[in-house]
Amino acid sequence: MSLELSVKATAVKPSSTLNIAATVTAMRAAGKNVVSFTVGQPDFITPRNIREAAKRAIDTGFTKYTAVAGYPELLQAVSDKFKQENGLDYTPEQIVVSNGGKHSLMNVFSVLLNPGDEVLIPGPYWLSYPEIVKLADGVPVYVMTDASTDYKVCVKALEQVITPKTKALIINTPNNPTGMMYSRKELKAIADFAVQHDIYVVSDEIYEYLNYTGEPHVSIASLGPAIYERTVTVNGLSKSYAMTGWRMGYIGAPLSVARAVAGIQSHQTSNISSITQKAAYEALTGPHDERDAMVRAFTDRRELLLKLLRPLPHIHFQEPQGAFYVLVDCTALIDTVYDGVCLKDAAMIADILLRDYAVAVIPCADFGYPNHIRLSYAVHEDEIRDGVRQIAVFLSKIETK
Amino acid sequence: MSLELSVKATAVKPSSTLNIAATVTAMRAAGKNVVSFTVGQPDFITPRNIREAAKRAIDTGFTKYTAVAGYPELLQAVSDKFKQENGLDYTPEQIVVSNGGKHSLMNVFSVLLNPGDEVLIPGPYWLSYPEIVKLADGVPVYVMTDASTDYKVCVKALEQVITPKTKALIINTPNNPTGMMYSRKELKAIADFAVQHDIYVVSDEIYEYLNYTGEPHVSIASLGPAIYERTVTVNGLSKSYAMTGWRMGYIGAPLSVARAVAGIQSHQTSNISSITQKAAYEALTGPHDERDAMVRAFTDRRELLLKLLRPLPHIHFQEPQGAFYVLVDCTALIDTVYDGVCLKDAAMIADILLRDYAVAVIPCADFGYPNHIRLSYAVHEDEIRDGVRQIAVFLSKIETK
Repeated sequence: MSLELSVKATAVKPSSTLNIAATVTAMRAAGKNVVSFTVGQPDFITPRNIREAAKRAIDTGFTKYTAVAGYPELLQAVSDKFKQENGLDYTPEQIVVSNGGKHSLMNVFSVLLNPGDEVLIPGPYWLSYPEIVKLADGVPVYVMTDASTDYKVCVKALEQVITPKTKALIINTPNNPTGMMYSRKELKAIADFAVQHDIYVVSDEIYEYLNYTGEPHVSIASLGPAIYERTVTVNGLSKSYAMTGWRMGYIGAPLSVARAVAGIQSHQTSNISSITQKAAYEALTGPHDERDAMVRAFTDRRELLLKLLRPLPHIHFQEPQGAFYVLVDCTALIDTVYDGVCLKDAAMIADILLRDYAVAVIPCADFGYPNHIRLSYAVHEDEIRDGVRQIAVFLSKIETK
Repeated sequence: MSLELSVKATAVKPSSTLNIAATVTAMRAAGKNVVSFTVGQPDFITPRNIREAAKRAIDTGFTKYTAVAGYPELLQAVSDKFKQENGLDYTPEQIVVSNGGKHSLMNVFSVLLNPGDEVLIPGPYWLSYPEIVKLADGVPVYVMTDASTDYKVCVKALEQVITPKTKALIINTPNNPTGMMYSRKELKAIADFAVQHDIYVVSDEIYEYLNYTGEPHVSIASLGPAIYERTVTVNGLSKSYAMTGWRMGYIGAPLSVARAVAGIQSHQTSNISSITQKAAYEALTGPHDERDAMVRAFTDRRELLLKLLRPLPHIHFQEPQGAFYVLVDCTALIDTVYDGVCLKDAAMIADILLRDYAVAVIPCADFGYPNHIRLSYAVHEDEIRDGVRQIAVFLSKIETK
């Protein structure tokens, strides 16, 4: 034969956000002072009660294989969480715990898709969705939105792209990178569409607690039995509990889907870290005061960042309702001139900001929006001030034609 | 469309060893006293120095995302381990850490196989190999062996099954379930075969330290540059360091393979638990006295189990050289009568042992050997004595024709 790698392996596009994060790490290691708006994780340490629970698990020898989907008490705790917070009835058998929300999504699409099946992905989208769908042999079908609908997808747009090959639709609320949240009414219309066309909805709710609207987060699966039976609800602890390193994502799903996910996981990774599972149990069942304090910090940082961004020229944004990102539309900067060079896209802008101003941002081509950048406010307030000051200097040097 | 699940999901066969383990757990929870020879993990707790390192990681907030393949010092530690213990030169860039050896294998085959590519799997084989190959769109091709070659595959047998579609060969030494180890000479012949036919070798060395021969373990990739460049060496900490629950497997591979594995993992799971990574670093670089003590315990248990099994009628086995399993050939029991019932295969024998004698063993149909059972000696000596006593009673009631 030959040593050539698989088509799948050579087609995969490594995560550009992780690449940029690595560049920032390298610059800082080299002594450079960089303000980074790129981070997709809280800058806080994991809450103390969770850390203590993990240490108890280690001390008591909870260091062996567990059931593939998670140890029974953890599955019960997730089941209780769904019931109490989301109005969702998932028995422990309908829950599978995986190595982060990413892994949950990967397993779900492996279970749903045959080669060539299409998945509707509203844009802007988290850049791993298309790669995950492709790794699961599916075909991503993008449904682009704009500021006129607060970057939220509507049924009319979905109707235009659905085909007999459409198997599923991804809904992400609160959204990465826009920070937008779908209302109950919007979700009801989407649910009706999914039921009518007999497709699955994969509802990514990883940013659930990072909600600044005062309105409750809505799980689409809670909107009636017809949508419940075709929805996989994906969630995890990374973003809300500052537990990104621990790797814990979970799904609630129709029993057939959950069983199939556990079956695949039994040969693919088995259980996630037993220590992480005990930490997750404490996160779900213990006191939430540190989580709530983090949400308050993000609330303040969001206010600060928006206040500083509003007066800046050339850029536009919708005020985010959740998560910890602001999506900044740089379309007005395209074809302007900076330092004698014509700006072609947001990737150029990001490069200049990093090179000339030591400010790292995420250019959003891989999120489907080549003229947008994403700013994370999971960073300290001083950094927010320093970084926006630098961005303002950059913008002051723009020559419009 | 419809809510049908993917062909891949419905074809996957859930791990039968994990199912039996779950049955034993349920019986014990119901108050039944079961001797279980089924376990694929040490019954020891993780060594203290490793547990302390993990707790320090938690206390110091090492709880955030790391590089996808593992944090730099861990990759360096794995690189050093390969160099010092296996004579293998893998730079840190050639190493990827995954959620257990299973996950490493899954990622490797995803990167190597296009749909329809064949993988040679010598039998008896660990039951997840075929499922992993199928999940990666490949076709498992079995090469059966028997006691006449100590259940080891030889080149003559491989020559008979290789086709232009053959992409890789799995070598597992020490072997699960046979406990056999390949000698340098045997591996050299296999290496020449792989080079000649231009295929990959995936070398699963997870039981490396559980070696009772007095002879060094040999990594096939160390046998020259031609085999090195077509081998992926898979290893992990689960079995040797009593770390099954932590989930840490790793590969050393040609750079192109390692990069592709990391690329897939960047969208599929990202890094494994950061806590586990710090524990793994300590396991690789810290004192090994607890690991060595466990190996001595397994040495004693192996001696005991073999001594007790030797006098038993009807059964046969090759004395294992490594791992912690004895593969018992029950062919002489097939078509004999127990309690008025004709024994048809090892699955029936296993059912009877569990039902009438409260002894759990693994029937090996899913390992390719329906007339064999696997006994693990990763159990306490008292249990070994009790369990074999029960097996002896069972065998005394057999009526041969």
